[in-house]
Amino acid sequence: MIIDIHGHLVAPPQMYEYQAKLFARRSPFKGPSLSDDLLRSKLADHLNVLTSGGIDVQFISPRPYTMMHSLFGTGVVNVWTRYVNDIIQRQCGLFPEHFRGVAGLPQFRVTDLAPVVAELERCVLELGFVGCLLNPDPCEADGTPQPGLGDGYWYPLYEKLCELDVPAMIHSASCSSPRESYSLHFINEESIAVIGLLQSRVFEDFPELKIVVAHGGGAIPYQLGRFRARNLKTGGEDFTDRLRKLHFDTVLYSSEALELLFRVVGPGNCLFGTERPGTGAVVDPRTGQSLDDLKPVIDALDILTDEDRRQVYETNAKRLYRRAFA
Amino acid sequence: MIIDIHGHLVAPPQMYEYQAKLFARRSPFKGPSLSDDLLRSKLADHLNVLTSGGIDVQFISPRPYTMMHSLFGTGVVNVWTRYVNDIIQRQCGLFPEHFRGVAGLPQFRVTDLAPVVAELERCVLELGFVGCLLNPDPCEADGTPQPGLGDGYWYPLYEKLCELDVPAMIHSASCSSPRESYSLHFINEESIAVIGLLQSRVFEDFPELKIVVAHGGGAIPYQLGRFRARNLKTGGEDFTDRLRKLHFDTVLYSSEALELLFRVVGPGNCLFGTERPGTGAVVDPRTGQSLDDLKPVIDALDILTDEDRRQVYETNAKRLYRRAFA
Repeated sequence: MIIDIHGHLVAPPQMYEYQAKLFARRSPFKGPSLSDDLLRSKLADHLNVLTSGGIDVQFISPRPYTMMHSLFGTGVVNVWTRYVNDIIQRQCGLFPEHFRGVAGLPQFRVTDLAPVVAELERCVLELGFVGCLLNPDPCEADGTPQPGLGDGYWYPLYEKLCELDVPAMIHSASCSSPRESYSLHFINEESIAVIGLLQSRVFEDFPELKIVVAHGGGAIPYQLGRFRARNLKTGGEDFTDRLRKLHFDTVLYSSEALELLFRVVGPGNCLFGTERPGTGAVVDPRTGQSLDDLKPVIDALDILTDEDRRQVYETNAKRLYRRAFA
Repeated sequence: MIIDIHGHLVAPPQMYEYQAKLFARRSPFKGPSLSDDLLRSKLADHLNVLTSGGIDVQFISPRPYTMMHSLFGTGVVNVWTRYVNDIIQRQCGLFPEHFRGVAGLPQFRVTDLAPVVAELERCVLELGFVGCLLNPDPCEADGTPQPGLGDGYWYPLYEKLCELDVPAMIHSASCSSPRESYSLHFINEESIAVIGLLQSRVFEDFPELKIVVAHGGGAIPYQLGRFRARNLKTGGEDFTDRLRKLHFDTVLYSSEALELLFRVVGPGNCLFGTERPGTGAVVDPRTGQSLDDLKPVIDALDILTDEDRRQVYETNAKRLYRRAFA
């Protein structure tokens, strides 16, 4: 079985019409009902892309850059996040053999986490979701100082993740900086998140916590040496070992990067992800294949054994996301 | 000849005593004179480290995290930067066979670049320096919005770099964010700088501009695929080709990362750098060697030919830094 743990919702325009009106009105109101037929019609292309890429099951979450984590207050973000999560649950219900739900969380800046924890619990216990996204930068790069992921601010969420036994995927949302696109900001936030977690007591305080870092871990597997140097100087655990407290997806659109990831963190800590259809949905003229068609790329890497590939494609995901195939 | 293009000043404590008083006083005053003997005594260890690493010549610049680019106004940063550059010039004069000077620039936030351009000119024409550092984040992550490196704000500096025919090395300074160390911030700022330059018209407007990105280019060589995807979608130049407008140093303390860098950007765009003595100055128990002793690591990479290595160690540096061996 080929499991893609990093996919996002493909939604009809009526959903974004509702979002545009939330942006415009800046206060919460109830979203429109969308029919099964409308949802189903939008999913045909999505399912074709998965089938053509050999993907049996994809985990889908909200498109992160649309999550509005820094705008308009808790009221808007709560109503919007619940609405999107409910659509994801409907899509999973329409195609239960192909999709599992991953929750967006209604993070609003660094305010009270209680609504965030409550929505996680609702999604897992009521909607049958298997994990969530976690945005390490809910201020969306607007310059507000924020606590790192090692800070106690996040502990109520970590407690709930452990209690529910679901992983969180590190994935930032939009970006207000004039110097960074949201796409580049994802990468920088993943680096900040990895270091924030591994240079803190989080995994000592929550040994059962399961964290997946999107896009192959930002810069850190590539920049590993400088963090090894720091830990060797301060007497900490070897950073190469410490890095294996985390898991990483394979949303890296080059074979050189995938090879580095597998060599540095090991196939036991990597989970197949493509984000199809998303950032990499474009044909590479050098290969004639879509850049996000990653299974042939991973199949061709001679550093992996068949057993390594089985871990990456299937068994790591089943081990981490225990609720996905229960 | 082995040329290390990324080294920093090793200074006696009297220099930092002066800096501490600048911090404390928050207004400029003249720094102390340091004797040749004092400077020479501090350099014995530095020279030993270079010799033991097989390094013939090192380019030295201010230690970036000490540059004070966001604090106390132009007066303090001007007097401090000139003072540090003058010490570098003294060190180069004491050991002209081993050192070349790379200027720190008195950037203060995003104020007028005229003093920055003037100090660059002074360092190159009067002190004999061969290049400079360029901090893409002079606000040092304090949350102030800033122009990216593609912005016209930077053009007077690019003009002067071209006129003087010297390269700038992208290297941020300190970091006020509660979530990032300055060391991690270096990496994120390099990623922002690479994308800011390559998604702008800078190299079309300044085809002769020479930019070296420190620490192997932050995240970008590893995250290349997502930027290729963007350019393929928008009809821009293949990002792999575009990346070769830039040069990269080898300050990456793992053989996996060095291999990826050479494969992705090519040895013709890589310059040997170690930062010795600096971040990587610690023995790796896995090898018994210092992490920043990079020549044996590069010598052992079987993807490089002898001619590739000669480019990385010597000829690329001589081609880019034309004033270094004139």
